[in-house]
Amino acid sequence: MLHGPASQPHIEIAAPIARELDAVLEVFDEELDSDLPFVNRLVGQVRNYRGKLLRPKLLLLSGRATGELIRDHVVLAAVVEMVHMATLVHDDVLDEADMRRRHDTVNRLVGNEAAVMLGDFLISHAYHLCSSLSSTFASRRIAAVTNTVCEGELLQIENRGNILLSEETYFEIIRRKTAALTAVCCEMGARASDADDETLEALTRYGNDIGIAFQIVDDLLDLTANENETGKSVGRDAEMGKATLPIIRYLASASPSDREALIDVLNNPSPDTRAAVRAILAGTDAIDQAFDAAGAYITSAVAAIAPLPESDAKASLTAAAEFVLARRQ
Amino acid sequence: MLHGPASQPHIEIAAPIARELDAVLEVFDEELDSDLPFVNRLVGQVRNYRGKLLRPKLLLLSGRATGELIRDHVVLAAVVEMVHMATLVHDDVLDEADMRRRHDTVNRLVGNEAAVMLGDFLISHAYHLCSSLSSTFASRRIAAVTNTVCEGELLQIENRGNILLSEETYFEIIRRKTAALTAVCCEMGARASDADDETLEALTRYGNDIGIAFQIVDDLLDLTANENETGKSVGRDAEMGKATLPIIRYLASASPSDREALIDVLNNPSPDTRAAVRAILAGTDAIDQAFDAAGAYITSAVAAIAPLPESDAKASLTAAAEFVLARRQ
Repeated sequence: MLHGPASQPHIEIAAPIARELDAVLEVFDEELDSDLPFVNRLVGQVRNYRGKLLRPKLLLLSGRATGELIRDHVVLAAVVEMVHMATLVHDDVLDEADMRRRHDTVNRLVGNEAAVMLGDFLISHAYHLCSSLSSTFASRRIAAVTNTVCEGELLQIENRGNILLSEETYFEIIRRKTAALTAVCCEMGARASDADDETLEALTRYGNDIGIAFQIVDDLLDLTANENETGKSVGRDAEMGKATLPIIRYLASASPSDREALIDVLNNPSPDTRAAVRAILAGTDAIDQAFDAAGAYITSAVAAIAPLPESDAKASLTAAAEFVLARRQ
Repeated sequence: MLHGPASQPHIEIAAPIARELDAVLEVFDEELDSDLPFVNRLVGQVRNYRGKLLRPKLLLLSGRATGELIRDHVVLAAVVEMVHMATLVHDDVLDEADMRRRHDTVNRLVGNEAAVMLGDFLISHAYHLCSSLSSTFASRRIAAVTNTVCEGELLQIENRGNILLSEETYFEIIRRKTAALTAVCCEMGARASDADDETLEALTRYGNDIGIAFQIVDDLLDLTANENETGKSVGRDAEMGKATLPIIRYLASASPSDREALIDVLNNPSPDTRAAVRAILAGTDAIDQAFDAAGAYITSAVAAIAPLPESDAKASLTAAAEFVLARRQ
């Protein structure tokens, strides 16, 4: 379960939606059940990836904060988790990652081929489940957001090895690949509760901003945390020539010779790249700057939902936003 | 353009649907247009894969053979082509994985990653386009068939290296990975023309049987044709431990020592595997047997649509079925 950061009064974020969250997992498992034992084994492996269920929680809490939860919320929450799982499985193939949530990745266990196909299987079932709803609206919206996520990933691939990535493009990448989905979670949750336009907009903004902050922190952890702490492969970004916010900020203000030193390290990737990057950034405020940027998005997210009526769900959304920053090691 | 086999009177298969086929390509291009130049370049690359447009043709001809063509047919035909393109792109990833073992570093990395994401982008847009239709029925049906296609691919991956694959499992693989989609093309085409249940069933059967035959012949060509003839890599199946119908039939009837000889060749894959397999099968009727099996499915496909009223579209469907066998080299 996700808890608020230590500095906050303890809030059980999932408490207002505990029953629905159980139903989401049931729908998830039911949808993916296959008559092929091999497929079920692979799906079982993916089940190990289940982490904090952030996206289903955002969807359900957004619904609860604005009205009653209905069956559509549960189905949609299972859909967004399936979409997210599919991106994790394909991401691990792209990153050649060996570890995810303290388990071997699918690509490591059964090879890239099975991992590519399993990701396809998950995304296909996400759409299949989504189109069980009465209107095409959700299917259209979910497919639009997966279009955007793919564009974000492709923009990132295009810029792999581009050490001099601009901050503008960095934000464009993370907006598309991460924030678009968290935004749509909140939007769909509110929409299924018949929220008015103003509330829809507020929750969409909250979802976008929490997604941006989440990705900035995720990128930071890849640089600063160890595998025991994150439960997944780290240091991949630096090794694969992915410029993230602390690097972008450092390069923007360092002296020409300091810039050259970092660029040289990044242009010659090796298993030692991460340690070398950390050594260069240590003693500068580049990491703090990136963390502060994430903090500003969290402040914005919390402000966006401030006008909503007080409720346990709203308190959970606020705590969930603050928890994003508490992931920092 | 697809033509009837030489032994048949010349039939321009696409003639009854030429206008709609142009519209399909327009919808296809429009749907995939992105604001990101890199994405458009990749999509342009995919456009080169366009072959005979078999699946859009089956869908449009099935609609025309049973009633009027409407806008839904055009949209659905673009959807099934996009689904098919996505499977081709992801199939290519598997080939590039081969190249990785030959240390083709930088291009390999960019190529593999972009191919996985581009395939995801195509499938996402297929669902996005499909959910622009007024009812969720098509979205649900298309997602159900992509579930099945993924299962077929996973069943095939599970059985890679299983030289003693049973004929039953071979047919289960090709039914799911190939015939399910061609069947749904014909079904959706007829359904959008408001065909009655009997006609729907006949065209679904036709689509299934033509798909099975197509895959048997495709597998045969991998063994018997050269790359100039097929325009794609050949010999992959034997190299990658994929047992196909001629091998299954040979093993079922060969003497114990002949069996051992073929199994030995398949268990020690090399660039010479295909030539060795061909040498062993030469002088037996294994390849003819497999071709005859495809022929039986074509006979069944043609018989299934025999009760339909005569029309140019029906004649094209019959010619398309017969053309599957004419691909034999």
